[in-house]
Parts: sequence; structure tokens; C-alpha cells
Amino acid sequence: MRILSGMRPTGSLHIGHLFGALQSWVDLQEKGHECFYFVADWHALTTHYNETGEIVKNSIELVKSYLAVGIDPEKSTIFIQSEIKEHAELTLLFSMFVSVSRLERVPTYKEIKQQLSERDLSNAGFLIYPVLQAADILIYLAEGVPVGEDQVYHIELTREIARRFNYLYEEVFPEPEPVLSKVPKLLGTDGRKMSKSYGNTIPLISNEQELRKMIMPMITDPARKRRTDPGNPEKCPVWDYHKAFGISEEDAEWVKDGCTNAKIGCVDCKKLLLKNMREKLEPIWERYNSLSDGFVRDVIVEGNRKARNVAKETMQKVKNAMKLDYDLLK
Amino acid sequence: MRILSGMRPTGSLHIGHLFGALQSWVDLQEKGHECFYFVADWHALTTHYNETGEIVKNSIELVKSYLAVGIDPEKSTIFIQSEIKEHAELTLLFSMFVSVSRLERVPTYKEIKQQLSERDLSNAGFLIYPVLQAADILIYLAEGVPVGEDQVYHIELTREIARRFNYLYEEVFPEPEPVLSKVPKLLGTDGRKMSKSYGNTIPLISNEQELRKMIMPMITDPARKRRTDPGNPEKCPVWDYHKAFGISEEDAEWVKDGCTNAKIGCVDCKKLLLKNMREKLEPIWERYNSLSDGFVRDVIVEGNRKARNVAKETMQKVKNAMKLDYDLLK
Ligand code: SF4
Ligand code: SF4
Repeated sequence: MRILSGMRPTGSLHIGHLFGALQSWVDLQEKGHECFYFVADWHALTTHYNETGEIVKNSIELVKSYLAVGIDPEKSTIFIQSEIKEHAELTLLFSMFVSVSRLERVPTYKEIKQQLSERDLSNAGFLIYPVLQAADILIYLAEGVPVGEDQVYHIELTREIARRFNYLYEEVFPEPEPVLSKVPKLLGTDGRKMSKSYGNTIPLISNEQELRKMIMPMITDPARKRRTDPGNPEKCPVWDYHKAFGISEEDAEWVKDGCTNAKIGCVDCKKLLLKNMREKLEPIWERYNSLSDGFVRDVIVEGNRKARNVAKETMQKVKNAMKLDYDLLK
Repeated sequence: MRILSGMRPTGSLHIGHLFGALQSWVDLQEKGHECFYFVADWHALTTHYNETGEIVKNSIELVKSYLAVGIDPEKSTIFIQSEIKEHAELTLLFSMFVSVSRLERVPTYKEIKQQLSERDLSNAGFLIYPVLQAADILIYLAEGVPVGEDQVYHIELTREIARRFNYLYEEVFPEPEPVLSKVPKLLGTDGRKMSKSYGNTIPLISNEQELRKMIMPMITDPARKRRTDPGNPEKCPVWDYHKAFGISEEDAEWVKDGCTNAKIGCVDCKKLLLKNMREKLEPIWERYNSLSDGFVRDVIVEGNRKARNVAKETMQKVKNAMKLDYDLLK
């Protein structure tokens, strides 16, 4: 199956991104699918057109994070959206038959506008953003798109656009399916929703000391005011982290028993979590730190080249289907 | 001054296009301006996305007409919009900071929607069409745009977009001026507005016989029912044609005197018109008929190449200004 997914280069990643997306990207790669993972830098413009200063830096960082978590450039194609102009071309062509009212009805359109009311989202780019997303996916003839629940509607619109194109012109595009993975529910270290603006997220790229500083003061079951108070792991965000980072059955028993019967302190419990987190994260940090600028550059150049070739091939099919091909000029 | 203009490839041209646009294009070229004249085939999609079968053929025809009227590929750059992907890229970037409500306020938006109510113009492409037009103009850093009165508002929007870009990022774009030329008022052969759908237009590319067939039955001053009835040239569409096709002072006297005093018949008057039209149009027909496919192809390939180079250069400036340049990848 051909897989496509991307993330916006909006700053450093946290462990929510690892479990929410990157982990499943790696899994799909390891299952032998043909994967295209990109940096959606044009998407960043739809909400941040007037703060472009960090986009390039963040994009490179994002590629480094892809590599650090285990996206293998020998197996998957890693590329940068804005380097493949064909995405813009296909967006323009799609926009010819997608109605404005259809785009206004995309649930996230009004929602995000309200959520980010301090931002200027009245721009046409934000309106046509789902068309750009459809072009991103369809230009690679992708069949599967790993997304979060909140993006399923966008894939539905992408399927609609594929169907409409195939109906109006010729069968060119498959109808991609959303690939949903089980995402563990993780709260921020203060028990609120994870959000960079709350400062309650665990960075994906970090170090032991920093990790300890985030985990040790982490909020627990409020019932355990003192070590002697019994607690309930189901009411404790630390327990969710334990499950996400793969606690052994034995250790899980130890936590459950120790917590509910006040045999262990939260400090003991968090030390175990720290150990398990380090086991998972340290290889990622190490890989991240070992990446040379030259290697990252080569990965992107080669990924862009591969992506561009596929995109060009698809555009040729699109032009043939739309009878917009100037054969005579070849 | 750098000049840019284009026409949609929507079928054969008539003499309205000659006097309304092409004539002034040639004049600007002959005055030594650096001219870019293009075929707006993507624009045709905004209104004709479901009738694309003729676009390529019509585009080539349009280039032939440009050449026939005297656009000289040694002096001007003739190219096809859809072959320069950078137009789509710049459109996407501009759409990030042009508001939807601004586009809905473009007077032609609601107007054309009403006029062409039989067409589906609810698509996003039709909404963002003025942004595409701005990209067409600004990507060549054009300073002058020959347009009809009805397009002046679009140039105003283009100037707004240029200003906004220069303000948000860095000074990249000049603010282009509309170049208005005196367009003679010409009615159709039946006295109604010229329109292909009325069948009352004189094709630009034609032949003597056809021209005669259109001109001889042409409507005249209704007062001249018989040859002996005096008429008034000011009430006669034939007289407008005389003026457009450059009647001599002497002949003009002959028509005015002959018409108002019933000394000449309308047939005599039209024969004179035919002679003058042929003098103007025959060289165009001859040039048109002498164009080989190979020559037209070479003109387009070379024009596309030149246009693409300028467009690429501008996009480099745009990316630098927006700080979206991946230097590292070079
Ligand atoms: S012992 Fe562990 S699971 Fe129980 S409240 Fe403390 S941190 Fe949470
Ligand atoms: S003589 Fe000429 S100007 Fe007068 S009505 Fe006839 S066609 Fe028109």
C-alpha cells in the first residue's frame, strides 16, 4: 500500500506526536508499505503567513525528528512540500471543481477559526487548505493516510475530490483510506491537555536531566496527598504514561498493588517510569544527536527528487485526463 | 516598461479582440516596451472546468492569432500560462494573505456569476481567480497591463496584493498600472452587442468571401429604407466600422455627404468599407496562413523558456523575502 502523511513544522515535537503519529509511521514503514512522509511547510502558512521566520529551521528540525524516531530514508521518502511545486499546480486544478460552500462546510474550518480567534484566518489559503491537503495526498496516488480522528473528515473530502476528478475527466486517483492507530490518551504533566503553550509537554528530543525535571513534579492521583494515602492508578496521568511507554506485567502489578495499598510512594513509581521512558527515548536522542547536517541535507535532496518524480508522473496523467497536455511542445 | 497581458483560449477571435486588445499589444511592442503576452488557459478552467476538450487547440490558435496580428516573437515573449507552474505556486502563497471576503467583494465576482448563471461558478477556483491573475502579472514584475475598462478593478486588487506582500515581507513587487487604450465602439453586424452566440461578429481570421457575406447584409441607419432616403452615419454601425478601419478624410466626406443627401447607396458605402477592411485584415490572414506548425511550436517553446526563467527568478526573490528559502539544499 502506498502511504502518505505529513506534519506542520510548527516547532519542537513532544511525546504526544510520537504516539499520535510518528510511531505509526514507523510501524507502517516496517510493515513494508511504500511510505511518503513530508514536511507540510505550506500548511504552516495558512495559519502563520505573517510569522515565517522559523519555518525553514523548523522544517529541518522536523526531518531530523522523523529520522530520529526511525523513519529510514532507505525505505521511506522524506520530502518538503514547498519544494514540489506540483502540489500547488494540482491544488489550483482541483479548486476549479470544489465549491466554496463545500469548503465552508468542513467542520474544522469554523472550529479552528474560533479556537485561534487571535489569528487572522480569514484568508483564502485557509479556506482552500483542505484542497491543498487533497492534492498532497492524491499527487502520490496514496491509498492510506495515517491521521488522527480529527482529520478523518479531511480524508473524506479528499475521497470526494478523487471521485469527482475521476468522474469529470478520467480515472486517475485511488480513493485513499484513513489509517487510524490506537493512540494512548496522554495528559500534560500538570494534568491538563498537552499543549506547548501550557509548558506541560515532554519534548521528544531531550536528555535525562530535563526528562527527570519534567516527570518528578508530575501531577498524580490527588487522593495521595501523603505517602500513606492509598491511590488509584486509573485517576493518575503517570499511569497513562506507564502504559504508553510499555510497562511489564510484573511492574504493572507492583504499581497497582503498591499504589492502591499505599505500599509505594509516587516517587518510586515515577522512577520506574523514568527508567522505561529512557529506554524508549534514549535511542531516539542518540540517533538525533548523531545526525550530521550533511546527512540530513542529502536525505532531503534525495527525498525531494523521488517525490518530485512521482508528482510529475501524476501531473502528466492529470493533464492527459483533463486534455490539457500540450503534446506538440515535446 | 515591462508589459504583461493575456487572453483566454475560448475559441476564435473576432475584430472586437483586435481593436479591444491585440492592436494595443502590438503598439506597445512597437514602442519598444518589454512585452509578455500569454494564453490564459488556467483562467479558462475557472468557467469551463467541465469542457476542457478544446482548450489546447484553442490555445495554439490563440498564439497563431497573436503572431498573425503582428506580435513578434523576436521582440515579445509569447507563452502558455499552464506551462509555467510558478504561477500556481505564487497564487497559493498570495492566497495566504488575501481574505475571502475581499475576493467576494470583487465586483465581477457576483456579476459574472449572475450573467453566466447557466454555468457552475460556485467553485473555489472562480473565487481565487483574481489572485491567480495577480500572480500572472506580478511574477513578471510587470509595470503595465493593457486591459479593458472592466478589468481595471482587478489591476487595483493586484496592486493591493503587491503592496501587502511588500509590507508583510520585503519589497519585491512593483505596483502595476492599467494601460488603457482608446477602443472604438463596434456593434455586431445586426446592430446588437458583439457576441459569438449571436453570430454577429466578424472573425479576425477569415477570407474575402466570408467577409463580404458578413458585411453586405449588415444593418445600417434604419431611416434609409430606400436608396433615396437620406441617412445619418452617426446612427449607423457601418460608420463605426469605417472609423475603426481608418477611412481617409476624403472618403469620410464622400460617405457623410452621400449618406445624408442620399447620393450614395448603402451598398456603395459598404463596398468602400470592405476595401478598407481587406487592406487591414488581408496581411493578418496572409501571415496567419503562412504560419507552419513547427514555427508556432518553436515560438511557444522559446517563449515558455523565457517566461519560466523570469518566473523562477521572481520566485527566488519571493522565497527570500518570505524566508522560505532552503539554502541548505543547494
Ligand atoms: S503511585 Fe504511581 S500510579 Fe499511584 S498515584 Fe502515584 S504516580 Fe500515580
Ligand atoms: S450610407 Fe453608409 S453610413 Fe449611411 S446608412 Fe448606409 S451604410 Fe450607413
